[in-house]
Amino acid sequence: MDFVLVSIFLGALAVLYGWLTSMQVLRSSAGNEKMQEIAAAIQEGAQAYLKRQYTTIAIVGVVVAILVGWFLGPISATGFVIGAILSGVAGFIGMNISVRSNVRTAQAASTGLQEGLTMAFRAGAITGMLVAGLALLAIAVFFWVLVNSLGYEANSRTVVDALVALAFGASLISIFARLGGGIFTKAADVGADLVGKVEAGIPEDDPRNPAVIADNVGDNVGDCAGMAADLFETYVVTVGATMVLTALLLKGLGDLLMPMMSLPLLIGGACILTSIIGTYFVRLGGGKNVMGAMYKGFLVTAVLSIPLIWLCIDQAIGLDTEITRSLADVGAGESVAEEGMAEQVVTFTGMDLFWCSLLGLIITGLIIWITEYYTGTNYRPVRSIAKSSETGHGTNVIQGLAISMEATALPTLVIVAGIVIAYQLAGLIGIAYSATAMLALAGMVVALDAYGPVTDNAGGIAEMAGLDDSVREKTDLLDAVGNTTKAVTKGYAIGSAGLAALVLFAAYTTDLGEFFPNLDVDFSLENPYVIVGLLLGALLPYLFGSMGMTAVGRAAGDVVIDVRDQFKNNPGIMTYETKPDYARTVDLVTKAAIKEMIIPSMLPVLAPIVVYFAIAAIAGQANGFAALGALLLGVIVGGLFVALSMTAGGGAWDNAKKYIEDGNHGGKGSEAHKAAVTGDTVGDPYKDTAGPAVNPMIKITNIVALLLLAALAGGHAV
Amino acid sequence: MDFVLVSIFLGALAVLYGWLTSMQVLRSSAGNEKMQEIAAAIQEGAQAYLKRQYTTIAIVGVVVAILVGWFLGPISATGFVIGAILSGVAGFIGMNISVRSNVRTAQAASTGLQEGLTMAFRAGAITGMLVAGLALLAIAVFFWVLVNSLGYEANSRTVVDALVALAFGASLISIFARLGGGIFTKAADVGADLVGKVEAGIPEDDPRNPAVIADNVGDNVGDCAGMAADLFETYVVTVGATMVLTALLLKGLGDLLMPMMSLPLLIGGACILTSIIGTYFVRLGGGKNVMGAMYKGFLVTAVLSIPLIWLCIDQAIGLDTEITRSLADVGAGESVAEEGMAEQVVTFTGMDLFWCSLLGLIITGLIIWITEYYTGTNYRPVRSIAKSSETGHGTNVIQGLAISMEATALPTLVIVAGIVIAYQLAGLIGIAYSATAMLALAGMVVALDAYGPVTDNAGGIAEMAGLDDSVREKTDLLDAVGNTTKAVTKGYAIGSAGLAALVLFAAYTTDLGEFFPNLDVDFSLENPYVIVGLLLGALLPYLFGSMGMTAVGRAAGDVVIDVRDQFKNNPGIMTYETKPDYARTVDLVTKAAIKEMIIPSMLPVLAPIVVYFAIAAIAGQANGFAALGALLLGVIVGGLFVALSMTAGGGAWDNAKKYIEDGNHGGKGSEAHKAAVTGDTVGDPYKDTAGPAVNPMIKITNIVALLLLAALAGGHAV
Repeated sequence: MDFVLVSIFLGALAVLYGWLTSMQVLRSSAGNEKMQEIAAAIQEGAQAYLKRQYTTIAIVGVVVAILVGWFLGPISATGFVIGAILSGVAGFIGMNISVRSNVRTAQAASTGLQEGLTMAFRAGAITGMLVAGLALLAIAVFFWVLVNSLGYEANSRTVVDALVALAFGASLISIFARLGGGIFTKAADVGADLVGKVEAGIPEDDPRNPAVIADNVGDNVGDCAGMAADLFETYVVTVGATMVLTALLLKGLGDLLMPMMSLPLLIGGACILTSIIGTYFVRLGGGKNVMGAMYKGFLVTAVLSIPLIWLCIDQAIGLDTEITRSLADVGAGESVAEEGMAEQVVTFTGMDLFWCSLLGLIITGLIIWITEYYTGTNYRPVRSIAKSSETGHGTNVIQGLAISMEATALPTLVIVAGIVIAYQLAGLIGIAYSATAMLALAGMVVALDAYGPVTDNAGGIAEMAGLDDSVREKTDLLDAVGNTTKAVTKGYAIGSAGLAALVLFAAYTTDLGEFFPNLDVDFSLENPYVIVGLLLGALLPYLFGSMGMTAVGRAAGDVVIDVRDQFKNNPGIMTYETKPDYARTVDLVTKAAIKEMIIPSMLPVLAPIVVYFAIAAIAGQANGFAALGALLLGVIVGGLFVALSMTAGGGAWDNAKKYIEDGNHGGKGSEAHKAAVTGDTVGDPYKDTAGPAVNPMIKITNIVALLLLAALAGGHAV
Repeated sequence: MDFVLVSIFLGALAVLYGWLTSMQVLRSSAGNEKMQEIAAAIQEGAQAYLKRQYTTIAIVGVVVAILVGWFLGPISATGFVIGAILSGVAGFIGMNISVRSNVRTAQAASTGLQEGLTMAFRAGAITGMLVAGLALLAIAVFFWVLVNSLGYEANSRTVVDALVALAFGASLISIFARLGGGIFTKAADVGADLVGKVEAGIPEDDPRNPAVIADNVGDNVGDCAGMAADLFETYVVTVGATMVLTALLLKGLGDLLMPMMSLPLLIGGACILTSIIGTYFVRLGGGKNVMGAMYKGFLVTAVLSIPLIWLCIDQAIGLDTEITRSLADVGAGESVAEEGMAEQVVTFTGMDLFWCSLLGLIITGLIIWITEYYTGTNYRPVRSIAKSSETGHGTNVIQGLAISMEATALPTLVIVAGIVIAYQLAGLIGIAYSATAMLALAGMVVALDAYGPVTDNAGGIAEMAGLDDSVREKTDLLDAVGNTTKAVTKGYAIGSAGLAALVLFAAYTTDLGEFFPNLDVDFSLENPYVIVGLLLGALLPYLFGSMGMTAVGRAAGDVVIDVRDQFKNNPGIMTYETKPDYARTVDLVTKAAIKEMIIPSMLPVLAPIVVYFAIAAIAGQANGFAALGALLLGVIVGGLFVALSMTAGGGAWDNAKKYIEDGNHGGKGSEAHKAAVTGDTVGDPYKDTAGPAVNPMIKITNIVALLLLAALAGGHAV
């Protein structure tokens, strides 16, 4: 059986599910005329933004595609273009579904809570399945064409380079989408809040606020399109890296080569099936426990995936099949230290890979659970922030920062335990399989996340269209879990990045050994250039985060000035006599976000190149490669903590505000509430701009290093 | 010539300078009765706090001393006790001078700005010289006794272990002092501000505020005693590590052994001389440029140090003397990879060591300059925070966080450049000499820093004693540079830690090779246990920072409740009829700070031990050591950024508030000012509690690892 074709079929199934479900969503009522009018304004804004964003990215993309083609040939360039385009498509479709389901969710919520949940979750599921399906199709079809139509060996250099280039395309687009979308959504959000809530004293989502449409557009282009592109990237990079590592590390597989290369794809396909089944279990079951309904769906998917992954491994390679990797065989790719132990071998069975995959599922579950603990209103962290709001803005922020730092501990311990166990079971390949299994659940995880902006928008539309308060109450109830589900996806993406980075680093060192067999690169911590690389790598997320936060501050400042100007020159707005110029604000934020996203996005692309050439010039090529390798690990060691603390902290701040709004510590309008609003504002760029963009940043740094190696080896070296 | 005796003489000179100058300070007028009464209350509170802190530390200290004695013998235990006691003494004397000079500075400032500056700076200089002098004496006398009286070889295991134990004593006390003092000062400060300024609407330093004396006590126990203990520790560890590395790495020095071992001490002694000279150049010269006066003193010290260091190296070992370290000779301590290159040698001359020392001086200068850029009111960073305050609390905090992250970039690049250049010049020993030269200037740097709390207190006393407004104006002018000088010391300490950590890591790997010659430890980044160690190491500063911030929040909450209670039950306070119970608040903060400091301080002591035993149990002893080694570097890679961002960010927030108070963006009382007060409150635990305590934390982790190695090798292994 051709396992690649099976996974292509399952990927196509996901797309089919997306198409059918979107038909179902679009058939339902879009509410009254006023609601449709508002929804149309949001759609228009989102489309205008994405159009401009993609135009800008396209220019960068074409330049990079030419460079990739020049250094690595047309097949790699094709891979890059496919990755880039599909990453964009995933974001675009996700956003398009989102802006159409928001108004329908508002309408459905007027019927009942379950109806609202169904509509919003369906929209999320469409995005989720499209992300996972398109990502799987991108790799599987490309791989299939390379091997079956063009006749390349499955583990040949061409296939490896092409897969890396595919991942690069996906990553490059996704960092732009994450960062651009993140800046847009938070600039609009913060700006709208600052003049609206704080200065003008009008409530959130008040139609008199000229930035209110921009705020709603932001939810779609940032939390939906940006997130979708990000997870598409994470999927492609993780599954691709597992295949690349298989090709590079496991030589002499013989008949097992194709099954081993296609196994990650097969696992991805199997979990698409279980994800689709899981979506049908997201039901309230009478109560009002929205998070519980979500968990039900996730749990069904995770539990069903276990036997299916078992079956995949059994069918593809057999559970008892032993795969032996003699380190002596592949000495070229190994460090001198390992060569010294020529007799050592790494042996693992299909069953070991199953245990590693199971470990990946467990890690995913634990990260979800930890994230809920740190961002849910029922637990100590959020409540401690809410309580500290009583003593003012300062103590709220102090406690929030303390929680954000604390929140890095448990996920790190989980990841560390995952690395240790997977490595004990099956070496580096074991770690790769844990990461692959984590990402295999992406369809379901994205579904939970993409649900958030839909309900957020639905609440906004209900407010602006003046629907009955009971509708807003229901959308609020639906939206309440949004902060947690959003934080979950980010913790999940960055957690998997922790594992994937190890896989990418292994690919880097193996590649290095193949390309430069005579170069003695010392990756030992005793080599000062390794320390230099670690320090510079760890600096990148700080610098990147700083740029992202500053960008939001600057763009939000522009929004404040624009809104103040509209209020001043058009006094009719406040008395409902005239409508504010929503489009003007949307246009302004669009321009600002696009402008601000360029430089930070270039940081991870250029840093590896600059560091390599600088250190190589000072201390020789071997130390240049050592420093570059260390940079790759430095960026994950630094980035993991920056990203985890920012995403968890931001979610906790947001929910602390919600907890107070639920009537605790004085409730809405109290001094504690004002302090909590400050914390929420601080958390916004933390959790939605800088923090999540760290994940694609880490990947890009790693992938650029791999491409740099290939380019240097190809003789086209600059 | 016995160079050790020369350095002992110079160390004693520093102590003599401190004694004479303190006589001079104590002879001057302590102001009127009211001022003396207030000063007495501060003295009493500070002494009560330190007494309780030292009692608590003593209990921990005795337990640890017994453990050190048990595992490493009585000489190491003696070293530990000396380090611990002298670290405490440095803090105690510094605090005692500080609480006596504050009132005298207030009195002197009523005469003129120059008089106030002279008095406050003299107080700082006393602390500075005592820190440097005592630190130098501790190592030099101990080393002299071991070698000359007890007859141990200068590079014997006993001497090495004893020096490491000495450093451990200093570090352990300093983390308690930094953290306990830091929690005290910020809990009192934040608490006093929250109820005083925000709730009761009374100005800062108003005598009606029951927490006002606690706030002033905090300046002395945190910014003075804590800082002094910290810098004492940094000095002892850095100079000690250079000696330890010399003993471990440079075998077969012959006649050069004693000169090479004593050279770091000699350089320290020489710079004490130049520091004393530098203090006489801190003069205003007519204008009002207080920072300029400080720079003059520092520049004189730095420039005079250059020829003197040159002279020291020339006299001790000769500038042209070549020191050759054949890697083959010391193969046991090296990785397999290096063994493979048996013919490789590291050669450096006395002149190379001079260049490395000069590099250390330059790094110090650059870090001061960068810190001033990020925390001074004249530059973009602080002004951008001030400007962002116009749009509210949230944007102030966002911009402050962005600046704090950005502020890590330049110091990191400077440290990286320092590592690369020093290593190119003279290998690891070169890096050690750069760090030693940095720390040699500690006398002057501490003088600049310790000046800060004196002027801060002087302003408070002037306010409480109802002195003429012109006096407060002058103390404010003197105090304005305090935020920058305080930030400078912290950047300097953590920057030097970046270099020292490399030296300590080299000592660790060399020790490992000596103790376990047959164990093949793989420190390569390709070893997953190295990644595990890096991740766990980087986690430590996050967890530690989180605990520190939470502790401040909790203790400040206690202060708020106490002050509210005093206002409520004693209404006469607000009408000046009755005096608040200052002592009660001081006592409360004391208890809270002592209680809160214990657990975070144990983190760096226990983490290396737990990680080693856990990984060794799972993956064998070699991987246990690999993970432990990686943990040591992980803690510096993570800690450097946490510490730099916190200390610079906190200083920038504080000065942004000061900049607004100077009449910009609406001045005092404006909305922007309120937002800036929030930022300042957030920055307080950042810059004065969590951030600076990261420096001793990094050192402790490293030293505990060295002691663990020695204990495991000693056969007493648990």
